[in-house]
Amino acid sequence: QIDSARLWGSIHETAQFGATAKGGVRRLTLSSEDKQVRDWFRKACADAGLEVHVDALGSQFGLRKGRDMSKPPVGIGSHLDTQPTGGKYDGILGTLGALEVIRTLNDAGIETEAPICVVNWTNEEGSRFAPAMMASAAYVGDFTTDDILSRKDAEGMTVGQALDSIGYRGDKPVGFQKLGCFVELHIEQGPILEAEGKTIGVVDSGQGVLWYDGKISGFESHAGSTPMPLRRDALATLSEIVLAMEAIAKKHGPNAVGTIGEAVIANPSRNVIPGEIAFTMDCRSADGAIMDALDRDLRAAITEIAARRKVEVKIDLVWRKPPTHFDPKLIAAVENAAKTLGYSSRRITSGAGHDACNLNTVMPAAMVFVPCKDGISHNELEDATQGDCAAGTNVLMHTVLAIAGV
Amino acid sequence: QIDSARLWGSIHETAQFGATAKGGVRRLTLSSEDKQVRDWFRKACADAGLEVHVDALGSQFGLRKGRDMSKPPVGIGSHLDTQPTGGKYDGILGTLGALEVIRTLNDAGIETEAPICVVNWTNEEGSRFAPAMMASAAYVGDFTTDDILSRKDAEGMTVGQALDSIGYRGDKPVGFQKLGCFVELHIEQGPILEAEGKTIGVVDSGQGVLWYDGKISGFESHAGSTPMPLRRDALATLSEIVLAMEAIAKKHGPNAVGTIGEAVIANPSRNVIPGEIAFTMDCRSADGAIMDALDRDLRAAITEIAARRKVEVKIDLVWRKPPTHFDPKLIAAVENAAKTLGYSSRRITSGAGHDACNLNTVMPAAMVFVPCKDGISHNELEDATQGDCAAGTNVLMHTVLAIAGV
Ligand SMILES: NC(=O)NCCC(=O)O
Ligand SMILES: NC(=O)NCCC(=O)O
Repeated sequence: QIDSARLWGSIHETAQFGATAKGGVRRLTLSSEDKQVRDWFRKACADAGLEVHVDALGSQFGLRKGRDMSKPPVGIGSHLDTQPTGGKYDGILGTLGALEVIRTLNDAGIETEAPICVVNWTNEEGSRFAPAMMASAAYVGDFTTDDILSRKDAEGMTVGQALDSIGYRGDKPVGFQKLGCFVELHIEQGPILEAEGKTIGVVDSGQGVLWYDGKISGFESHAGSTPMPLRRDALATLSEIVLAMEAIAKKHGPNAVGTIGEAVIANPSRNVIPGEIAFTMDCRSADGAIMDALDRDLRAAITEIAARRKVEVKIDLVWRKPPTHFDPKLIAAVENAAKTLGYSSRRITSGAGHDACNLNTVMPAAMVFVPCKDGISHNELEDATQGDCAAGTNVLMHTVLAIAGV
Repeated sequence: QIDSARLWGSIHETAQFGATAKGGVRRLTLSSEDKQVRDWFRKACADAGLEVHVDALGSQFGLRKGRDMSKPPVGIGSHLDTQPTGGKYDGILGTLGALEVIRTLNDAGIETEAPICVVNWTNEEGSRFAPAMMASAAYVGDFTTDDILSRKDAEGMTVGQALDSIGYRGDKPVGFQKLGCFVELHIEQGPILEAEGKTIGVVDSGQGVLWYDGKISGFESHAGSTPMPLRRDALATLSEIVLAMEAIAKKHGPNAVGTIGEAVIANPSRNVIPGEIAFTMDCRSADGAIMDALDRDLRAAITEIAARRKVEVKIDLVWRKPPTHFDPKLIAAVENAAKTLGYSSRRITSGAGHDACNLNTVMPAAMVFVPCKDGISHNELEDATQGDCAAGTNVLMHTVLAIAGV
């Protein structure tokens, strides 16, 4: 059994780095708040006897030796960055839960056959730099390190510059730390476990993701003197796209979602018809065929809207992550750990993307979910109970012990 | 006859202050570019023998003496500020046209009975500070000087601070310069004169304006894991409001328009459902009853949308300018000047608001319109011909001579 109070203390101690007035955390990746939590995490790992290294994209790896160092380590962890209006648990539970597993094994004097490696992946959220799960995507070879280093945030700062600005461009090449498998603990970020009164979600799959950058070019014109029929209004165009996206996701539901999270009017003014808007789109489904249908329906709707309104709409698919099907043996190991510990559980699909989804493309991976209040996440009000966080960390530990061997 | 080449030269010389790459002008009120054009204008007025004063809101007044100084001056002029994506003519033609009238009278050695006063009104555009036609509204007593001085731009800077920052908080109280009447030359900013091949628009009325500030409070939530039916999406809400506004304006058309020009998502992120949006609305009609109907229909639509989507929408009417009916005698004077000079003309309603509309509430006022290319305004591509600009300035001069007396 892990030390529930110690885990809870670590979560609340690190929540000070970027704490918001509403009780959430604003800790954008590679920001000064991210540096603070990274420094804290490095010290905590070193204090727990781990050998800590940082790779060229800033991900932190803390290695605990095993009896058989020829065996690849069992990877555990998650991320410490948050959304602009993020909570205290998303990513943090999985990273500090992994640290708590190490601390517990140390206290109990337990050695494992295979080594264990705790990881804090850079930029899981994808809010400052696209795509999400950025560092783990480079780790599995979806993008080159140089490509990722050149990605820019809204202010034009690159990942490379941001890493340097907080001193976290590590000396190890991406992929230096081989892993044999990866297990990630996370809050569900959805309402199912809570609604059904289950403590553990045994994650067997994850939704695929489509990310688009969009740009609407209408025509700026006077709000008072331009008759309604002559307008080429970029905001009215966006509005139709938002509602079309909503309708398309509902049509393909319940196994589909679609969101427009960002939209910026260029040179806005009260009495000017918007002429240009940059926006982004996020579509998801756990079913590859539905993802294709979402893409097709969305493009058709946008083409029709643009032609009818005589505006230009460009959309650019900047990321496509296929649905994830986690490793059957690891899924069974998680399920078995939950059963052994006496926690109620159910199989579940992850609505959110996770670093474990990337790692699953090159090694066996699995995930453990615990409930969060009202399914709320990516919100400062995100909440979870100490008991559920401890239960998930216990399941993580017992899964690791089963895989690594005692 | 005015000097067409000199007028054209002044327009293009001042267009350098805030010139944009696309050939337009970005000269927000009380910005450093506005200071440049004000300095230019002050010198040009002084060189033309005018006595120049600045009032507490930065408006510039250049007085040309008349034979009978007991008569109130005939006011002419417009504004030199522009939209963020503005053109070279909106406001500028009327201000530099007024200067050209003075220069022409000087060259011809013409004295008038009543004095003539050239005016550059501060913040006609209303883009940086609300409301539009701000200084002339204070001049006619719609707002106190102190109220206006405390209005803030998007960065939180007040009108008072902005005036001080460019050294244009004048020593004269608002209203110090009495005027007997006001005549404003302007580009039409709409497509009618060009379409009908008319050179002069004799403006007999102006649309009323409703300006609102709005705020939508939905709920931020994860774009991947929040099922469509559980969302309280602020952007989907705004989208419905935008399309409702468009439909309502069309329903009450052709004599009505409605625009949402500004909308800002708080803490935007690709994978977060927008939780909070601030926006503005602009509705207009030349018919007061239609303005009331627009307001009523809009409020009803917003109430229904907000309730159905379980979000909060607050709207605040921040400005209501009733429709304008210009002075019949001055309208006739403009019409007569156009006829005498041999220009084709027609009566017309102004779609845009103008300082003359404010002045009309306390003194006789009228306006002269000239065509602009494709009716385009509040756009960097705004354009007008040298011949039309000169024609309008000639009509302005002959109207002034008729009123002021030679
Ligand atoms: N777990 C999580 O919130 N990941 C962020 C990436 C995404 O799913 O959009
Ligand atoms: N003439 C003009 O464009 N005025 C700006 C104020 C408004 O009508 O919105």
